[in-house]
Amino acid sequence: MSYSNETDAEQRGTDRRTMNYGKEKIAVYRTYANPLEDVRTIPESSFDGRDNILFGLEVRVQFEGEEFLPSFSEADNTTVVATDSMKNFVLHQAGEYEGATAEGFLHFVGTEFLETYPHVEAVKMSAIEYPFDERPVPGEDGFEPSDLVFRVSDDESAFGEVSLERDGDELRFEEQTSGVTEIELVKVKENSFTGYVQDEYTTLPEREDRALYIALDVFWTYADPEDALGDDPQRYVPAEQVRDIAHVVFHEVNSNSIQDLIYQIGLRVLERYPQLESVSFEANNRTWIEVRDDLEGDAKVLREPPRPTGYQQFSMDRSDLEEQ
Amino acid sequence: MSYSNETDAEQRGTDRRTMNYGKEKIAVYRTYANPLEDVRTIPESSFDGRDNILFGLEVRVQFEGEEFLPSFSEADNTTVVATDSMKNFVLHQAGEYEGATAEGFLHFVGTEFLETYPHVEAVKMSAIEYPFDERPVPGEDGFEPSDLVFRVSDDESAFGEVSLERDGDELRFEEQTSGVTEIELVKVKENSFTGYVQDEYTTLPEREDRALYIALDVFWTYADPEDALGDDPQRYVPAEQVRDIAHVVFHEVNSNSIQDLIYQIGLRVLERYPQLESVSFEANNRTWIEVRDDLEGDAKVLREPPRPTGYQQFSMDRSDLEEQ
Amino acid sequence: MSYSNETDAEQRGTDRRTMNYGKEKIAVYRTYANPLEDVRTIPESSFDGRDNILFGLEVRVQFEGEEFLPSFSEADNTTVVATDSMKNFVLHQAGEYEGATAEGFLHFVGTEFLETYPHVEAVKMSAIEYPFDERPVPGEDGFEPSDLVFRVSDDESAFGEVSLERDGDELRFEEQTSGVTEIELVKVKENSFTGYVQDEYTTLPEREDRALYIALDVFWTYADPEDALGDDPQRYVPAEQVRDIAHVVFHEVNSNSIQDLIYQIGLRVLERYPQLESVSFEANNRTWIEVRDDLEGDAKVLREPPRPTGYQQFSMDRSDLEEQ
Amino acid sequence: MSYSNETDAEQRGTDRRTMNYGKEKIAVYRTYANPLEDVRTIPESSFDGRDNILFGLEVRVQFEGEEFLPSFSEADNTTVVATDSMKNFVLHQAGEYEGATAEGFLHFVGTEFLETYPHVEAVKMSAIEYPFDERPVPGEDGFEPSDLVFRVSDDESAFGEVSLERDGDELRFEEQTSGVTEIELVKVKENSFTGYVQDEYTTLPEREDRALYIALDVFWTYADPEDALGDDPQRYVPAEQVRDIAHVVFHEVNSNSIQDLIYQIGLRVLERYPQLESVSFEANNRTWIEVRDDLEGDAKVLREPPRPTGYQQFSMDRSDLEEQ
Repeated sequence: MSYSNETDAEQRGTDRRTMNYGKEKIAVYRTYANPLEDVRTIPESSFDGRDNILFGLEVRVQFEGEEFLPSFSEADNTTVVATDSMKNFVLHQAGEYEGATAEGFLHFVGTEFLETYPHVEAVKMSAIEYPFDERPVPGEDGFEPSDLVFRVSDDESAFGEVSLERDGDELRFEEQTSGVTEIELVKVKENSFTGYVQDEYTTLPEREDRALYIALDVFWTYADPEDALGDDPQRYVPAEQVRDIAHVVFHEVNSNSIQDLIYQIGLRVLERYPQLESVSFEANNRTWIEVRDDLEGDAKVLREPPRPTGYQQFSMDRSDLEEQ
Repeated sequence: MSYSNETDAEQRGTDRRTMNYGKEKIAVYRTYANPLEDVRTIPESSFDGRDNILFGLEVRVQFEGEEFLPSFSEADNTTVVATDSMKNFVLHQAGEYEGATAEGFLHFVGTEFLETYPHVEAVKMSAIEYPFDERPVPGEDGFEPSDLVFRVSDDESAFGEVSLERDGDELRFEEQTSGVTEIELVKVKENSFTGYVQDEYTTLPEREDRALYIALDVFWTYADPEDALGDDPQRYVPAEQVRDIAHVVFHEVNSNSIQDLIYQIGLRVLERYPQLESVSFEANNRTWIEVRDDLEGDAKVLREPPRPTGYQQFSMDRSDLEEQ
Repeated sequence: MSYSNETDAEQRGTDRRTMNYGKEKIAVYRTYANPLEDVRTIPESSFDGRDNILFGLEVRVQFEGEEFLPSFSEADNTTVVATDSMKNFVLHQAGEYEGATAEGFLHFVGTEFLETYPHVEAVKMSAIEYPFDERPVPGEDGFEPSDLVFRVSDDESAFGEVSLERDGDELRFEEQTSGVTEIELVKVKENSFTGYVQDEYTTLPEREDRALYIALDVFWTYADPEDALGDDPQRYVPAEQVRDIAHVVFHEVNSNSIQDLIYQIGLRVLERYPQLESVSFEANNRTWIEVRDDLEGDAKVLREPPRPTGYQQFSMDRSDLEEQ
Repeated sequence: MSYSNETDAEQRGTDRRTMNYGKEKIAVYRTYANPLEDVRTIPESSFDGRDNILFGLEVRVQFEGEEFLPSFSEADNTTVVATDSMKNFVLHQAGEYEGATAEGFLHFVGTEFLETYPHVEAVKMSAIEYPFDERPVPGEDGFEPSDLVFRVSDDESAFGEVSLERDGDELRFEEQTSGVTEIELVKVKENSFTGYVQDEYTTLPEREDRALYIALDVFWTYADPEDALGDDPQRYVPAEQVRDIAHVVFHEVNSNSIQDLIYQIGLRVLERYPQLESVSFEANNRTWIEVRDDLEGDAKVLREPPRPTGYQQFSMDRSDLEEQ
């Protein structure tokens, strides 16, 4: 699953062609960044902020502009900012940024890019935020999180993307996406999958009570993109809370399909955050196959499925909430 | 680098939302498929067909249609073709297909899907074609390709995508993309990178003669999508030939950037194949860093760069050719 | 980093050659396995057991025996248990096992293998235990772990290996290794690396206070292999506790190298668990490179190193503890 | 599949413990290295040398010696050559080496290490050789290999390992392994798998004529390790030739198992190269599953197996050849 930016030139409608270049996979780490504080809590999550003692992103920079055409068609590098310089730029700005969010950092660097290089028409900045988990160490009153040692996790991570365009002397900030990607959850019982099309190609047995294993990316957009930056923490939607909504809804709902499940998660997200315009999903089915159901109680033995896996892509907005 | 299909629902303009589902990574293999013969040759390539003794694809199926909404919003699976059944369907059709190309197979299966399931509005089928290399074995007149043993390669592979839509009683086939992905080439000398922006963020030294290592995806569309199916092999553009154009142009041209290089490759592709409407690129710079240039002749020692890598995304059409 | 079993035939000294076969990457999941309870706690960890509502392993089976030679040298499959049957065997036994640990399961299945197939001389069973994290959901008294939904984690995991040999009518169980692999920890300050060899090949600057990022596998053996099975939970060493020792010692110690750090961790492990005979490490240095140290306080900007990374392999036993 | 070096300290029998450290994944590239010429040819292969216009290795360095103990037990770095310096050392020596083989380079650098650092007792050097494929470009008489552009392949690659030990004032070179790893071959028919154990755990159907897909690592040792260095090319065994023996034997033999197949390959390797002492294998079964066999002629449809895969580990020496 990946979040794609590729058709933006077309979406902007300004170009007859795709033309951009940039740098991707820029790993940047900042110790003792400013903390994210004062976040509004929700019933599904205890997350109310983070210290940002360790803040790390894998950044992607994309430059667009008609003035880059001669670099392709005439081998003229006059306008080319080397992608190595882009990397240096991002690393430098990580020391200047005074906010506390991925989206805020991307907006900050994107703005600096457009102010530094007047021939660039548009900049798209995106990032995965590296997850660093707190680790419990013995303290005076039992275990407390270490303020020095963190786990470098490979689990779900926050995602941000901001698009900035030059509009005469102004910079426009109209497009933004936030997200949390690679959530992987399994629910051991209380899921069904029944009532689907039965025909000559159907070999999958219907299940009233199956284990269900999903991989999930959730993305959201704000009605006002500025809310994504975190300057007003009360209006900021932290990826940690959306992650928690996902597993709490999964816990609560006995769903009849992944489609059903993500719709319920989407409704909950839209309900909790009136400042959001839309929420979208990329889901992936990794459900194991039952091998033994002859054991006592609910116990089962399961095995891995062959690799081909089903997926769902789905977006929702506030009108879905109103239809309830 | 990946070729993205995600904004298609928007592009079709029929939906207020993204809504699709399907199956990806369906590996299907067919032995003794029909050969691809009678392909027109070009000066850059000796490729003129293939036996298809072993033909394999990793297929992705995507279903779209308004009738799927209740599967999300009402947990109603009545219209849901299980993705496991989609897999079975693709595997079965691999025995029915009588053509010789990835694009032809995708079009064949997509058509069967729409004819079998009348509530599906649109099907998008895409695939990577697994590369199986011939292996030389001793024959009567020296080495000849084995007709039994093939290497399963991890190198560049062909790509195909076709989109089919229901239009009343008709099926429309207007969108198609072909490609070759993950070409990786290094040219040991006769490349430069000079004349780019120099400022406080620039640390990369200019190079009059560098080794250049690129990863490259090339995609193309035909003016008439039917030409992509290979029924008329003279009008079919095999990925093997485009792959060969890429390294031949790289060999011939002393380029001043990847931008310059892919433009030259694009011109050559458009020139060789008048039946193509456009060609596009996703390029990635993996150039090594010089460690020693004090050796005799052109010899150098080089090392791997840190991970962050530059990329280019660029599309061209016939008007680029005319401007030359 | 990987734990290797390959020279076992040589270590057993019974064979002039390596000869074995088996099945690897057998993913097996069991819901509602028996809980691990009554584990002795240590100051560095709050872990005292787990519910095993979801218990999953990636298992590797290895068969050895002189009777397999004709399957190689004479194409005689009479003695060959198909590796597909091995997989079925493992899956079946997952429903029979009544214990609560990876090592116990491996010992149980290995014993069943030797009892079922009398021509097999030795069986080596190993496994990675899939980490399933508890997820907090709202309960009556605040958040509590869900008993239905678990995160499928990609972080550190437990490892186990047991070797069983036929000795006349008896089965011998003399070799065993337990472990926890792919621990990844970063400590943002209070680490040094100074005083190492300085010569013409040295370009790395000495650091009195660096961030240190390590990947770590820890393995241990028991004086009595039976203690590894978990039948007496008071003598069982859970991977979760060793993982916690690693980050607690990292938190406490201002080390002058990874060598120094793992030695301290090893001493602590040997100290906490008198039932262990040895502890060993495979460590890997992934420390980031400082880009900016001109910021306020301890704040720094860092970047990823180029890929080549240093490693350490080191084993310790009780005599190291006595030398303190 | 990986080739393991971990028990070497034990094999040397000099230490009560494992204790080593080093640097792995050092990517080093050399352009215009000396060509490998004058290689003896064999009936199974047309390989007789290579230009080495582009020569690249991923190197692993391992230092051993009792003098490193205080770096662990006393945080004393006096004897520690930083692994970053090891990397610089390897990169530098790539400009000094005048031979033409991976094994020769490893021996050269290892010797330099022991001569430079007198407190190091033993050095183990290993490497994967990056495969760079020739690319055909139009020449005066049809297509010829480009002398500038090469494909960076992800297919099978050569492997080398040499172990050097200090013995008083001398350096001993007694252990060496060469190899070719990650060969992946499929044979579409004329393989069987029958006659294996049938019991309650058996679900795999016997096959008189199946497609067989194997992954294969082949390793060999020379009676005289010096022959591995390539100084006398007539006694050097190039990985390219062993790779070719593997697919030629696979083509020729109708085997009844992978065990049978690798035995035949091993015999052929030992027969062709009297200078070799042993040959060993790590094989992996990735055979696809038949979905349709109702098609005309030998045509079949197949699908990918679930992930668990069978493996074989097997070594042979000249006595196996004599027993034929």
